[in-house]
Amino acid sequence: MYRGKAKELLQDISPGDRIRIKKGSATYEGILMPRSELGDDQHIVIKLDNGYNIGIEITGASIERIAERESTKKPKIKVKKTVGKDKVTILGTGGTIASKIDYKTGAVHPSFSTEEIINAIPELGDLAELKTKLLFNILSENMTPEYWKKIAEEVANELNSGASGVVIAHGTDTLSYTSAALSFMLKNLYKPVVLVGSQRSSDRPSSDAHLNLISSVKVACSEIGEVVVVMHESSSDVSCLIHRGTRVRKMHSSRRDAFKSINSRPIGRINGKLEIFQTFRKRREKEKVEADTRLNENIALLKIYPGISSEILDYYIDKFDGLVLEGTGLGHAPESLINSVERAKEIGKPIVMTTQTLYGRVDMKVYSTGRKLLARGVIPGGDMLPEVAYVKLMHVLGVAEDLNEVKTLMITNLAGELSERTLYFA
Amino acid sequence: MYRGKAKELLQDISPGDRIRIKKGSATYEGILMPRSELGDDQHIVIKLDNGYNIGIEITGASIERIAERESTKKPKIKVKKTVGKDKVTILGTGGTIASKIDYKTGAVHPSFSTEEIINAIPELGDLAELKTKLLFNILSENMTPEYWKKIAEEVANELNSGASGVVIAHGTDTLSYTSAALSFMLKNLYKPVVLVGSQRSSDRPSSDAHLNLISSVKVACSEIGEVVVVMHESSSDVSCLIHRGTRVRKMHSSRRDAFKSINSRPIGRINGKLEIFQTFRKRREKEKVEADTRLNENIALLKIYPGISSEILDYYIDKFDGLVLEGTGLGHAPESLINSVERAKEIGKPIVMTTQTLYGRVDMKVYSTGRKLLARGVIPGGDMLPEVAYVKLMHVLGVAEDLNEVKTLMITNLAGELSERTLYFA
Repeated sequence: MYRGKAKELLQDISPGDRIRIKKGSATYEGILMPRSELGDDQHIVIKLDNGYNIGIEITGASIERIAERESTKKPKIKVKKTVGKDKVTILGTGGTIASKIDYKTGAVHPSFSTEEIINAIPELGDLAELKTKLLFNILSENMTPEYWKKIAEEVANELNSGASGVVIAHGTDTLSYTSAALSFMLKNLYKPVVLVGSQRSSDRPSSDAHLNLISSVKVACSEIGEVVVVMHESSSDVSCLIHRGTRVRKMHSSRRDAFKSINSRPIGRINGKLEIFQTFRKRREKEKVEADTRLNENIALLKIYPGISSEILDYYIDKFDGLVLEGTGLGHAPESLINSVERAKEIGKPIVMTTQTLYGRVDMKVYSTGRKLLARGVIPGGDMLPEVAYVKLMHVLGVAEDLNEVKTLMITNLAGELSERTLYFA
Repeated sequence: MYRGKAKELLQDISPGDRIRIKKGSATYEGILMPRSELGDDQHIVIKLDNGYNIGIEITGASIERIAERESTKKPKIKVKKTVGKDKVTILGTGGTIASKIDYKTGAVHPSFSTEEIINAIPELGDLAELKTKLLFNILSENMTPEYWKKIAEEVANELNSGASGVVIAHGTDTLSYTSAALSFMLKNLYKPVVLVGSQRSSDRPSSDAHLNLISSVKVACSEIGEVVVVMHESSSDVSCLIHRGTRVRKMHSSRRDAFKSINSRPIGRINGKLEIFQTFRKRREKEKVEADTRLNENIALLKIYPGISSEILDYYIDKFDGLVLEGTGLGHAPESLINSVERAKEIGKPIVMTTQTLYGRVDMKVYSTGRKLLARGVIPGGDMLPEVAYVKLMHVLGVAEDLNEVKTLMITNLAGELSERTLYFA
């Protein structure tokens, strides 16, 4: 229960009400959460639409109720079945899902058009009114931030022109980098943007392309208003998982169930019907999505290992505008790199720390090494995947006005990439 | 069944017999395996003591039978129980397992000596005749190849002076890099070398240090003649897994069961008794282990990501003697890096390809990108972990005489780091 100053500010607003908090130039919107007995009277906690809770320090804040508490009922989650009702756009970018085997050499070439794939899977036409567009045709190892921007702009165009959802057929190698990039770039997104790939080309009997594509079109008609990745759940051809775009990683080089949600449950499963495992942002029809394609591409990702020299780190600090380290354990780097980190601080280059264990979060207050790095301005990456932190730093350096804003945004959950039990920012 | 030339060469040697094959300067020893109906008559397949099969092309080879087929019986695997019989040396290197909490700041400091830990766990004395030695006291993020050499030499000394096994207490951050390094450096090893760490310091009630240490001493008395890592199997305090030193990785920043075997089952489990899951090299008492500490430390590990520039790769190629890439998917890198890779080939710098998916193996013949890289001399890393390939390349560049030998050794299983159904080398 709120008490003291927080209670004064809230007046008759009760937990469960939807509120808008303004503080300086920032605006936060979400559901007011109850406060634990142990909480102070300086913060108000709200649940954002992405399902995460944040705590907001109340000094200088004004609060407005937008809507009263909704009656408690289970959210209706269903795949819309009405034939021809939903308009879904499939954007082709290349990759195995658009490949076939050269039976002379046994090698795989990108050659099917998205159109051809759809012709090969007539069931797709029963699910939605489809439109296809081949944006480009590249293997995803050749994907670059420039391509991410084109995809983001095209997705925004399609959604703002009446599409219920967009499916992006993409190579699997760097699919999760693209899903993270779209998650940060698509602002005010309340419709499904579904990335899908396949691990075996669609003219092989063992191909996962059919089930993945069908599932992705179903998700594109669903109530999930986020960027997600839809891929096989297991090596059998039964169900797909719906992964949040900022929480997924390719964890096997060849298996059909290579994609795993890390540090988060998948949003759900689709095998005919849609099962939901956790909170998600719900569809709204009338919002206008924006593609914010401002990226600072002069960023690097550097993995720490025994024997790495300060000379390498110095090279990166001089060459790039920002750096994500894939540290060891709770977010560590050798003591021998501390002077270089200090220098990065002096010249105002942000360094973000993540962990090469992939699972778990950095916690840089436990050991002396972490504390030394924190004292030199290293930004703790929480439980963000290293690759996601890399993409996020490009985005944040593209949009932030100064280094302080970079730090604040990097430790703030923007697109489900980061969880904190309660995240305080002033 | 062997036929043609292979049969001629084998004479009365039968599958199951232990044989020695000499070919040029190389000698291979192992059990003759049966040959499939489909096999040619140019190769002989033997199972090495590490459990892997290799195929040897017979031109110029001579074969000698060392022992007839052993009667088929299950290998006896037991933890020796005789009090005071086994001599086990515990080497301290630092890390959480030798840490305690500073209750003023909540921070963790390395401060217990190995001796103190043993005093704190009197059961250890019942398991073996213990000797302890603090080699140094560092957090494992500060571990370097120089320290690996000191550990390897000390392990060899102890085993050659009558120790039944050695336990190395080590920080968890880079423990698996050290276990890989020792696996390559300790030649002719037939006794257990057990790396152990803990994720919670030993003065905490939730510490995993006690069970991990007790289990590691038991494994040090066992029949397993390899470098292994012994850590918690689950988050409860019940059992430990025994991971092969070249197949293990820290996969969570804080959980007690953070260590996982990748692309291989653990060798076994210990929870009172020892359960074995797969083949391993068996203890022999009379062999003399050698520490081959020749390492070329001028090696780097570079992770590939969308947006990486050829300028970075060029920097690494110029600066280092060899490079391990953590590629995408089946072992890919952007097309834009191909010219740099070509240049590395021209100036004779080896580049090894692994995958950032961690699970699975590289297969560079499937897609055009992989084939282009192979054509430019990139060495496929099979199912080696990127970090293990990095350590192995240091070792291989330290011992090989020319680039051809580097290539051969990198694709050859030296210490269980690499599996091939059948690995042919001429």
